[in-house]
Amino acid sequence: MFMGEPSETTSSARSSHLEAQWVVGFTDGEGCFYIGINRHSDLSSGYQILPEFSIVQHNSDIQILHRIKSFFGCGVIRVNHGDRMAYRVRSIKHLTERIIPFFEKHSLKTKKKLNFISFRKVLIMINRKQHLTADGVEQIKEIAKKMNRGL
Amino acid sequence: MFMGEPSETTSSARSSHLEAQWVVGFTDGEGCFYIGINRHSDLSSGYQILPEFSIVQHNSDIQILHRIKSFFGCGVIRVNHGDRMAYRVRSIKHLTERIIPFFEKHSLKTKKKLNFISFRKVLIMINRKQHLTADGVEQIKEIAKKMNRGL
Repeated sequence: MFMGEPSETTSSARSSHLEAQWVVGFTDGEGCFYIGINRHSDLSSGYQILPEFSIVQHNSDIQILHRIKSFFGCGVIRVNHGDRMAYRVRSIKHLTERIIPFFEKHSLKTKKKLNFISFRKVLIMINRKQHLTADGVEQIKEIAKKMNRGL
Repeated sequence: MFMGEPSETTSSARSSHLEAQWVVGFTDGEGCFYIGINRHSDLSSGYQILPEFSIVQHNSDIQILHRIKSFFGCGVIRVNHGDRMAYRVRSIKHLTERIIPFFEKHSLKTKKKLNFISFRKVLIMINRKQHLTADGVEQIKEIAKKMNRGL
């Protein structure tokens, strides 16, 4: 299911591009794997599941968010709060085909790895359409509860 | 003046050790280059200059601070505030011979690089004993003022 990944060889060959290990280190520091769960009466399960990978920086460091965006070849850069900007990936396709395979290949080194593993579990469930069932949503809620303990 | 550096080849050869680019990325996210300036009437200049490189993490991620300490081969790990721990290097010798040459060789990629450049300037002044004169202290105060703007 998890196919494709950013072209690191090309990236590290050009000095303006980022190296994979730098991206891992920066994500260990600043990255966030988050599962949003919103009530949504139009959906059969009653809930909308919104996974998101994000990195927030002060506006003065927006250039690094653009470099990360171009490293992963997906995502958007938007205002987060006030003078803070966020790089965000919400597309299931991009999370599944780019973000997850990258961190599978290049392990996070802090406790954030546990969040990543939970995040990956939820993406697998979504790709199997399990998030559309009441039972699947309950499982995802349990996983998300453990993730959002500030690990 | 800036000699020696951590043995990266050895580090990356052992899976439990960190890679240089990971350390750069994590420092871009979590690292802090700080110049403390305290009044100290016993000193000829009237001030004590205390440069410090630090990385703060929640207690649950203390393992990564130990790995960083062993990567640089210097520094200490102490309680920062409450449940947060800090990896700290305050020794002028270790800052001069290990921390600064590492980040000279492996450039920071965020605005934190500007703080590093200022930090390096102050370390050069300290090694030339310029921090012991009133004029040197004034220059260091100017540099430190620009550094501590949350860059």
